[in-house]
Amino acid sequence: MSATSSTGPSAATVADIAEKAKLLSIYSMMSTTAAGSGHPTSCMSAAQLVAGVYFYAMKFDPKNANSNNDDRFVLSKGHAAPLLYSALAVAGVFPVSRVMTLRELTSELEGHPTPLIHGVDAATGSLGQGLSVGAGLAIGARMDKSDTRVYVLTGDGELAEGQVWEAAAFAAFYKLDNITVICDINRLGQSDPTMYQHDMERYRLKWESEGFATQVINGHDVPAILAALDKAKATKGKPQAILAETIKGHGFSEVADKMGWHGKPFSKEQLAAAIKELGGGPTVPPDPGKSYARTSLPKPPDFPPAPAPDYKADAKVATREAYGDALKRVGSVNKSVVAISGDVKNSTFSEVFQNAEPDHFVQGYIAEQNLVSVAVGLQARGKVPFADTFACFLSRAYDNVRMAAISRANINLCGSHCGVSIGEDGPSQMALEDIAMFRAINDSVVFYPGDAVSTERLVETMARRPGINYLRTSRPKFPILYKTDEKFPYPGFKVLTKSDSDKVTVIGAGVTLHEALKAAAQLKASGTNIRVIDLYCVKPIDGKAIAAEVAATGGKLITVEDHWPEGGLGEASITALNLVGAPPAKFKMLAVTGMPHSGKPEELVEKFGISAKHIVEAVKAIV
Amino acid sequence: MSATSSTGPSAATVADIAEKAKLLSIYSMMSTTAAGSGHPTSCMSAAQLVAGVYFYAMKFDPKNANSNNDDRFVLSKGHAAPLLYSALAVAGVFPVSRVMTLRELTSELEGHPTPLIHGVDAATGSLGQGLSVGAGLAIGARMDKSDTRVYVLTGDGELAEGQVWEAAAFAAFYKLDNITVICDINRLGQSDPTMYQHDMERYRLKWESEGFATQVINGHDVPAILAALDKAKATKGKPQAILAETIKGHGFSEVADKMGWHGKPFSKEQLAAAIKELGGGPTVPPDPGKSYARTSLPKPPDFPPAPAPDYKADAKVATREAYGDALKRVGSVNKSVVAISGDVKNSTFSEVFQNAEPDHFVQGYIAEQNLVSVAVGLQARGKVPFADTFACFLSRAYDNVRMAAISRANINLCGSHCGVSIGEDGPSQMALEDIAMFRAINDSVVFYPGDAVSTERLVETMARRPGINYLRTSRPKFPILYKTDEKFPYPGFKVLTKSDSDKVTVIGAGVTLHEALKAAAQLKASGTNIRVIDLYCVKPIDGKAIAAEVAATGGKLITVEDHWPEGGLGEASITALNLVGAPPAKFKMLAVTGMPHSGKPEELVEKFGISAKHIVEAVKAIV
Repeated sequence: MSATSSTGPSAATVADIAEKAKLLSIYSMMSTTAAGSGHPTSCMSAAQLVAGVYFYAMKFDPKNANSNNDDRFVLSKGHAAPLLYSALAVAGVFPVSRVMTLRELTSELEGHPTPLIHGVDAATGSLGQGLSVGAGLAIGARMDKSDTRVYVLTGDGELAEGQVWEAAAFAAFYKLDNITVICDINRLGQSDPTMYQHDMERYRLKWESEGFATQVINGHDVPAILAALDKAKATKGKPQAILAETIKGHGFSEVADKMGWHGKPFSKEQLAAAIKELGGGPTVPPDPGKSYARTSLPKPPDFPPAPAPDYKADAKVATREAYGDALKRVGSVNKSVVAISGDVKNSTFSEVFQNAEPDHFVQGYIAEQNLVSVAVGLQARGKVPFADTFACFLSRAYDNVRMAAISRANINLCGSHCGVSIGEDGPSQMALEDIAMFRAINDSVVFYPGDAVSTERLVETMARRPGINYLRTSRPKFPILYKTDEKFPYPGFKVLTKSDSDKVTVIGAGVTLHEALKAAAQLKASGTNIRVIDLYCVKPIDGKAIAAEVAATGGKLITVEDHWPEGGLGEASITALNLVGAPPAKFKMLAVTGMPHSGKPEELVEKFGISAKHIVEAVKAIV
Repeated sequence: MSATSSTGPSAATVADIAEKAKLLSIYSMMSTTAAGSGHPTSCMSAAQLVAGVYFYAMKFDPKNANSNNDDRFVLSKGHAAPLLYSALAVAGVFPVSRVMTLRELTSELEGHPTPLIHGVDAATGSLGQGLSVGAGLAIGARMDKSDTRVYVLTGDGELAEGQVWEAAAFAAFYKLDNITVICDINRLGQSDPTMYQHDMERYRLKWESEGFATQVINGHDVPAILAALDKAKATKGKPQAILAETIKGHGFSEVADKMGWHGKPFSKEQLAAAIKELGGGPTVPPDPGKSYARTSLPKPPDFPPAPAPDYKADAKVATREAYGDALKRVGSVNKSVVAISGDVKNSTFSEVFQNAEPDHFVQGYIAEQNLVSVAVGLQARGKVPFADTFACFLSRAYDNVRMAAISRANINLCGSHCGVSIGEDGPSQMALEDIAMFRAINDSVVFYPGDAVSTERLVETMARRPGINYLRTSRPKFPILYKTDEKFPYPGFKVLTKSDSDKVTVIGAGVTLHEALKAAAQLKASGTNIRVIDLYCVKPIDGKAIAAEVAATGGKLITVEDHWPEGGLGEASITALNLVGAPPAKFKMLAVTGMPHSGKPEELVEKFGISAKHIVEAVKAIV
């Protein structure tokens, strides 16, 4: 698709791109009118820009639109989806008639783009995430020693999102000169003009202060666009930002540069007037109804079994420590693994992986939104990303995880320092909602291992599993519970204490598993047996299997977790049991209630109701 | 506390502040050594800066440390808590001996600051949030026509957090010249040096590009600090940034400027050596054990009953529309209400409030993290903030909501466009996890009204209730269900269809409530009665009251929600029933399963399993 030359594009090239841009505008308007919804004016401001990228700058194969060998485009301003679809159609990925199925129930061309569409790497539509995705693609290309370039189109309203500036700092710091961001500065947000409107110098200064090579252009001047793209491509050592001054609704005078037209499709009459004003356009035949959705999405690459963990039976190891070793072992047989950490590698132990595979480790600094969206970009290139931070700080990236699920991304997230059991740092560092968060993500798994062996095995499982995989690790050291060759299927749990006279089933995980084991030992000494279950996999959960255990213990169940009562291990268990028609006869839920505070770990698990003592009391009350 | 003069501070003032700074370092080291944990080196880099703020620049009354009439300080780098506590002690808020109880179970002086401590407005510890809180305080002061100034201390590692730049843009756009941010640029992050280390010009350019008046100083040069604070205070029209080049662990040569000392307390031997190097320090007597916690935290101010809603019985009104009218009505009798919106006021209808109370409306632009933390700042000044955006975009601010709860903040959040029922925009705009999110927040309520009347009444309730109050509003228009004078207590629900022969209880809310009512009408026509419950309050939930309804319908329960299965209305209901020992005999949960996509609202509720048709099928299967 590239038609650069050292003397710049020919007049014929310029005319061709201007004509294509016009088509992109027309198809965007037609499709949104047909749909009765959508954002035509947001498409029209960027038509020349997108045409320049697709039909001049990008190395792009319409038959292999997600190829690692070609350039990539990320539409950060996802509501301009019709513009992207029109470009993909004009580029030959699917027929133009398909664009007219925009937003229909059975069409892959949704209101905002998803990777079910050829040429799309990540879902967008929640603003401010695209540059991070692009940075992930770019840094992945760098790791692959590929000369792939990445183009990202943002709006201007979305530049208020802080994540854009996380991504900008990241891209500049890592000298990702293979990424060009183009900002469609059309002055008008959804409900008000933007902060800076057409103060282009303000935008230029911001990007320059981040370390980008900047250019300011008229975003409807095709020669200027093509020259800027050429100059960007030739820039070494810095990522590039092209700040394009544009008009929202450009080309249709009735709406151009006017508030009140965001997200409004044109009436049939307006559409006709607009097409006329643009100089007329082709007729588009009705769509035959054939889907052009990608029939299969990338899965993590297979790899040989990782070397087995080799913990001594009497070792005491924190699951956060085991995470680092696990990554190292998996990384030794899977060179697609990339770890990215939010300035906590010495706390989450991903630094163990960094020492083993320094070229596959990325310091993400304190920027969790960027951390997760960069992981989405990495996996779009076939990497197997493991992103880590404190579990509580993953709440900073919840929208990014949400969008990763819509992206059908294969990412692995490790959140350490869960629960009150972290101790003196206090609640700002304690994750008490992360199980709820990650359960409420489509196609996620939630792993919460109780020892180093299970941690290592589950990390390897995560590296094989597509989707969003979450691992909750703990700060305190735990004894080894499992033999090296133990298997940890999902769904799954382990029964750690069992007798013919178990009076109640107690389900715990992590620190509360060990508190439950302490309680079991105490109770056994005084003549009461309890069945302790390690729920190392909180999602998915096998209600029937748990029901069998509860039935064997007189229908009595206690759940105990270092987490709020809502949405965690307890709710997951009780819901699963009720869904299979096997509610317990008696049920107690122990969880953290009331805002925690600083203190020693053992003081806190005691004060906040989840210690062995509380479990013993609960057993006595329920039995 | 202020000792400015037009000729600058006297030598005696400089000496006094230098001496106080030394004490702040010493007390920070002593308290963290006593605690066995904490971040002394992060305190030592900012000791002169904090001394300059507290003992020179700030108008501050130690007897009334949270006064709206005085200046405010926000410690954005919350892990430097010991430094703040030391400053508060030296300022006279509590004895120095109290500082030595740092991180103990029974001390209000936790590992990271909370508003349980006099002089603290918001909990910090999750980085990058403090400038937003400060901006909320500053814009609140502006609304009050108060000349209160706000000082915010950030670290440098945390400047990688995008939220800082959301807040910076916000502060500059609103010309908040009553806010000074001081950046403690000590070069060293937790696990690696920061991106820019001591490239002060890089930092200065970033802040200048945001529209701040900038100064670069040596952060240990007291005269320079005081001069910078004077100059900042005299600046009009722009917020100010003082970029202070500092040394992590300044004053103790064994650790100064060295990696590997983040978050590490000194041994007793090191402590003695450090104090000696600093020139010696006072003995601190043992703490008598008296708490200096604030005994009461601010509550939203009382206000007269709002004017009643006046919907016609046959009106069809979206709950999102009702939100706007509700805010207007409440705002008419409560002048503390401030609404802040993320560039969606025309979608969430907060623009109705803007038109009525333009001076109490703030355009937040597309920056949800800042939106929520600004609300925290506003409520610390006694405002009653209502922040709105699409419910799915509140996931962008989950860490901010989490920190707001630790702040014991009184904030109201409205998330619109919930569920698949928004239609063609597709999943990036659909909130399907927000009920789970907001349930897993300490001391939150989750309201999900099914008509305009209940929406209005619940908004008024939210304005009265302390804590985190969440309102989930819907896009489609609903009929009016309730009379104007209906009461909506919390916990609470409404039984909308009832007979002596109800075969099953069906719990819904919002769109699924109306689908359930349709199903009830269909089933009634064919001879089967069902009991439909409007669960307008999902949290808290009264398990016993729900159990009574389920018992009256043969122990059969169906829940149906426009939300994922996890953590929502269904899990809340079934968990509550099991916790009171009253699990249903038969239970079915209808929720959105599988990733949704674009389509008409009615097509999507059908395809994703939550329509009247599915409810009818579920009833037939369960009965």
